[in-house]
Amino acid sequence: MNFMVGQSGGPTAVINSSLAGVFETARSSGAVRVLGMQHGIEGLLKGQVADLTRLFDSDLKIELLKRTPSSYLGSCRYKLPAPVAGDEVYETLFELFARYQVDAVLYIGGNDSMDTIAKLSAYGEAIGSPIRFVGVPKTIDNDLVCTDHTPGFGSAAKYIATIMKEVIRDSNAYDLRSVTVAEIMGRHAGWLAGAASLSKGDDCDGPDLILLPEVPFDPKLFLRRVDRLQKQKESVIIAASEGVKDRQGRFLCDLAGEGGALDAFGHKAMLSGTSRYLAGLIQSELGCKSRAIELSTLQRCAGHLASRTDISEAYRAGGAAVMAALEGRTGCMAALKRLSDQPYLCGTELVDVHQVANAEKTVPLEWIEPDGMHVNAAFEAYARPLIQGELTPMFVNGVPRHITL
Amino acid sequence: MNFMVGQSGGPTAVINSSLAGVFETARSSGAVRVLGMQHGIEGLLKGQVADLTRLFDSDLKIELLKRTPSSYLGSCRYKLPAPVAGDEVYETLFELFARYQVDAVLYIGGNDSMDTIAKLSAYGEAIGSPIRFVGVPKTIDNDLVCTDHTPGFGSAAKYIATIMKEVIRDSNAYDLRSVTVAEIMGRHAGWLAGAASLSKGDDCDGPDLILLPEVPFDPKLFLRRVDRLQKQKESVIIAASEGVKDRQGRFLCDLAGEGGALDAFGHKAMLSGTSRYLAGLIQSELGCKSRAIELSTLQRCAGHLASRTDISEAYRAGGAAVMAALEGRTGCMAALKRLSDQPYLCGTELVDVHQVANAEKTVPLEWIEPDGMHVNAAFEAYARPLIQGELTPMFVNGVPRHITL
Repeated sequence: MNFMVGQSGGPTAVINSSLAGVFETARSSGAVRVLGMQHGIEGLLKGQVADLTRLFDSDLKIELLKRTPSSYLGSCRYKLPAPVAGDEVYETLFELFARYQVDAVLYIGGNDSMDTIAKLSAYGEAIGSPIRFVGVPKTIDNDLVCTDHTPGFGSAAKYIATIMKEVIRDSNAYDLRSVTVAEIMGRHAGWLAGAASLSKGDDCDGPDLILLPEVPFDPKLFLRRVDRLQKQKESVIIAASEGVKDRQGRFLCDLAGEGGALDAFGHKAMLSGTSRYLAGLIQSELGCKSRAIELSTLQRCAGHLASRTDISEAYRAGGAAVMAALEGRTGCMAALKRLSDQPYLCGTELVDVHQVANAEKTVPLEWIEPDGMHVNAAFEAYARPLIQGELTPMFVNGVPRHITL
Repeated sequence: MNFMVGQSGGPTAVINSSLAGVFETARSSGAVRVLGMQHGIEGLLKGQVADLTRLFDSDLKIELLKRTPSSYLGSCRYKLPAPVAGDEVYETLFELFARYQVDAVLYIGGNDSMDTIAKLSAYGEAIGSPIRFVGVPKTIDNDLVCTDHTPGFGSAAKYIATIMKEVIRDSNAYDLRSVTVAEIMGRHAGWLAGAASLSKGDDCDGPDLILLPEVPFDPKLFLRRVDRLQKQKESVIIAASEGVKDRQGRFLCDLAGEGGALDAFGHKAMLSGTSRYLAGLIQSELGCKSRAIELSTLQRCAGHLASRTDISEAYRAGGAAVMAALEGRTGCMAALKRLSDQPYLCGTELVDVHQVANAEKTVPLEWIEPDGMHVNAAFEAYARPLIQGELTPMFVNGVPRHITL
């Protein structure tokens, strides 16, 4: 059997571990060729295909691949049109699959990528193609349904928890009252913001407040809490999701620029940033020193601090997708299924990719504190196992070594 | 002999390794008591003193200390007045030293801290006090004179080099033209911005341009270079020091808010950020997609990615300061002295702290490319050895364990 695999959507620290899982499982099950689409479906349409069988010719390269963040094959954000018979894009794609003698197509990605798999499998079935289409979940946002969690989330959560600990230490260094607002990714779901709570331990209080997109932001309630906190302790730490919205459903980061501000170039200023908005609000209303920190893109590319649990599960999801294709399955995704919390055990199962595509999983309200400004023990029980373990980078000349296409 | 030690100024990843070096060297040389000032001189004046002999009662705690970023004892930014006989602050301090039966005072910090040691030793000599005052260098900025480099720089440089590699990978994921501007700490010296160049290797091109405070910013030249670059390659990466100034000596980050912008609260908007300014300039003048990333405070608190070389040297500088005090030296700093580049060898030497205080070391112009927009091989030969090696954090529950006072 010949396999073709692609990576799509935003990078993660472990998206290449899934690629490693796909490659090694395919090879060990006798696959002759494993091809990679460069820059996903978009690159494939331009004929950008790499022969992974030739590229991954040593075990060292596979180990490097597992330690390399951000798509090895390159990514894209490409939405397929509806799968209508005779559509030009689909005809081109299936011609390409035929030309490369592909028996199974695997796609590693988030909602949009599962939408791609759903559409390709639907089209394939409609035209009677024997090609199997299987998805491998991937997103730091952890917002896919039908899977306990998504590969990529655990590593981003580990990075966020570690960095929050370090930021909290940094904020505590001075004997000065201050409020620090750390902005965390997640436009629609608060999984990553919630992960800031994992910084808590015997040696760290963790953030004092966590704001999630799941709970409408109430400025009065918020300011009252911050005011009380900053009277109780020197250094107040707030973790805020970039997706926090007010009661009218407006993102706080969009409100930030409402002063009609112009930048130095005479353009509408991008005073973007939920954290900047909140720091400004605190400074303005409470008059106390505040600062904003954006964890920014580092959350999704910090391969040097990946979770070993996440790396293993990403690898296994890739392998399970290959097994599914070998068994003749199509239109499905290799999901993660939690078997137990203590000890943490997680396996894989196949789910209908049509149910995954375009749906979104948010943090359950019962895992959020009643005042809406923190997560509770149930969240921790869910998330803590996912950040366990490390895979030491291979340092060369003082920096982690990666593998490049 | 009894020792008292304090930490001052901005945190680093290895400031506690110097504390470990002070403590262990003092103890092994027979010191009865090692006391710690909490929050430096400022805390001492309030009577905040910790008994380290009691607190560091196991080797495990010392190992945790070496792995804990940001001052264990707490820090301050406190500038002593001129050392005039009879000054109240000095009288209080020397009374406190007498009360705690202190024979030597060690202070771990940057310029201001060396100024403190210089003044205390001058005052001590003037009043005929036998107390010895010795400084231990510390700053991520690497801007202290009379020392080859400063403990703290190597770890910040290793963090910056690693993160730049990961950001570059992240930027390359999509098949899209984009310019990324990463903002790096260093208000007056470009050592940290230059460290971005250490991301370069077989698997990474490193940043395309590096802007340093040492070279006045020329917008025309800069835009011409960026324009050429973005026509040659998909993803252009610029590392910019927060301290970049224009020909008139104005910080770019101050220019950012010149549109007279008001924020959502009706206050003058803080459009701060050299990277935001540059990203705006590129977008405005070249019309190409650009984004700004601030590496922010993480540069000085990322203990999870410290350089082992840096940790060892920080420890040794602490130890050398203790030895100096034991030999009766005062008014000096334990500097790092490079003995050779290949193999890299570095020892310590004592230098006059008065020469260190309030001076600043910038990147030599001959280590900067003629066009002023990158560093050269001489910079790398200097900086590369300083980021070598790692000291694995002790992970507990998925995050690095620290030690707290």
